[in-house]
Amino acid sequence: MSQTGLDVVGVGNAIVDVLAKADDAFLSAHDITRGGMMLIDEAQAKEIYAAMGAAIEISGGSAANTTACVASFGGAAGFVGKVADDTLGEIFRHDLRALGVEFETAPLDKGPATGRCLVNVTPDAQRSMSTFLGAAGHVSVADIDPEQIGRSAITFFEGYLFEGEVPRKAFYKAAEIARSAGRRTALTLSDAGCVERQFAAFNDFIDQHIDILLANDVEAAALFGSDDLDVIAEKAREKCALTAVTLSEKGSLLIPRDGEVVRIDAVNPPQLEDTTGAGDAYAAGLLFGLARGLDLAQAGALGSLAASEIISHFGARPSVSLKDMAGNAGLI
Amino acid sequence: MSQTGLDVVGVGNAIVDVLAKADDAFLSAHDITRGGMMLIDEAQAKEIYAAMGAAIEISGGSAANTTACVASFGGAAGFVGKVADDTLGEIFRHDLRALGVEFETAPLDKGPATGRCLVNVTPDAQRSMSTFLGAAGHVSVADIDPEQIGRSAITFFEGYLFEGEVPRKAFYKAAEIARSAGRRTALTLSDAGCVERQFAAFNDFIDQHIDILLANDVEAAALFGSDDLDVIAEKAREKCALTAVTLSEKGSLLIPRDGEVVRIDAVNPPQLEDTTGAGDAYAAGLLFGLARGLDLAQAGALGSLAASEIISHFGARPSVSLKDMAGNAGLI
Repeated sequence: MSQTGLDVVGVGNAIVDVLAKADDAFLSAHDITRGGMMLIDEAQAKEIYAAMGAAIEISGGSAANTTACVASFGGAAGFVGKVADDTLGEIFRHDLRALGVEFETAPLDKGPATGRCLVNVTPDAQRSMSTFLGAAGHVSVADIDPEQIGRSAITFFEGYLFEGEVPRKAFYKAAEIARSAGRRTALTLSDAGCVERQFAAFNDFIDQHIDILLANDVEAAALFGSDDLDVIAEKAREKCALTAVTLSEKGSLLIPRDGEVVRIDAVNPPQLEDTTGAGDAYAAGLLFGLARGLDLAQAGALGSLAASEIISHFGARPSVSLKDMAGNAGLI
Repeated sequence: MSQTGLDVVGVGNAIVDVLAKADDAFLSAHDITRGGMMLIDEAQAKEIYAAMGAAIEISGGSAANTTACVASFGGAAGFVGKVADDTLGEIFRHDLRALGVEFETAPLDKGPATGRCLVNVTPDAQRSMSTFLGAAGHVSVADIDPEQIGRSAITFFEGYLFEGEVPRKAFYKAAEIARSAGRRTALTLSDAGCVERQFAAFNDFIDQHIDILLANDVEAAALFGSDDLDVIAEKAREKCALTAVTLSEKGSLLIPRDGEVVRIDAVNPPQLEDTTGAGDAYAAGLLFGLARGLDLAQAGALGSLAASEIISHFGARPSVSLKDMAGNAGLI
């Protein structure tokens, strides 16, 4: 393994996205939550897949997408996540490594297949996700490499993975190592339902271990008990050194504990194709910028830029160099 | 199996495309023929894949792409091809069936994995293909269902598959059945190298069994021994009832045995992203039109329209309804 310092190491779900176009009737017929993420078992995955349209397979996973975008910005990124020893697992590993992301987590020895996320994209570009976690949910403390966490400026946790007790222990271990090494930690809340189900546990983890919190407006409302952005800002300041609240096309708010709220504009994409991965890409720009010492406005602008690239095409991994895009936009 | 009449049944390689962006240096470093298709073994496939960029997986196969486009035009299509009983095989089967293509060929019982085509797309949108055929090369006479061939207006053969002796026998059987049932047969030459290696065999098959021949200008030159389009037209008339010669952005020529050459214009795509599948899509428009009794100019226009859709995005399967596109263009 390389001994180079990393800008961001992500700990999250190692899953392959299976993307198809769908209409609203399809979502209703299969009880799929519109615009949300729901966990399904292998039998449900087979049933929904059989009914879905012709698909394309692209490596996904929220934090993995973030590390892919960090690498595309020219950053040094690592990923911790669990695949099985199967075809989709090979595809996932190949695609991350091909982008230069350090990914050394051993595949799951025995157990379920590599996880997959069935993404049905409706004509309004909204994605509705049905996720069979499979091997992805088996990240454990044994997968946390203290050396890797210790040389990463920011360790970034994916909230989706927080629902499992085994990965949750891995989060605590990694966060403790990061903080002990004088590094920063970040968490994305991932999903409002996830926050509601694990409310006390999320609060405990954030209060003990998180420097940078990322959430969209709905997730932030679930955590802070209010959809008033002023109330959210006030409560966020009590909780974390920095909180980022994304507001879709309205941009985002960066709320530092000791300073004014910084308002970041969204960047309009050339066309809106598929919102899968918008938040992951925003996280990448923000965290890469912070790891490189940019100020909040600059780091947030990188986040908006990355999100605009991702939503302009099918899939959640960048299709062009974010480094070149940011260079052309005069941001780095 | 449905007893509905089919417009087109394709017999070809059942393979999944693995598409990544590449530069010319990558092609040179791995001895990949620029713009061509080369067959590789499993070890070479692993080596090239390991070195390739982050990829997306989309079901492919030349004749399979054609049947997918026929279905997208609203036609009834079938496919005969061989996958293994593995993940990529499931993906291939799912994606064809999701488009409504009838695909009943049993998976290969023992033998290699499902075939894959490593497609490296250079910045000029040109695709260079390295194909591990795997199970795809195992189509045999046992896979030809006389009932299915008999109810298909056109049986369409993929030249790539003609190199193997086992599938070649399947071609002869299917062509005999089609002709005996009073149906038409079509063949795409697929690749100039393929034509050169199997020159006598191709000529024998065409002379005995083919009504409609499809080729690009390079393949036509390989078969007819001249790159002069007038010479090609003269020789084509001796060989087949109809020959279509595609000329990339210059459109195509339709050469009927008993009539004037019909010149078909290309349709400019909104953007040129990836030429993978342009010929397959053209074949779909042409054959669907002929199956439905359109005249040559109309059928050729459908071919050009389908090709323009396919080259405007990554991958060789249609991303929008070709039926809607053709309707909007006033073609059907």
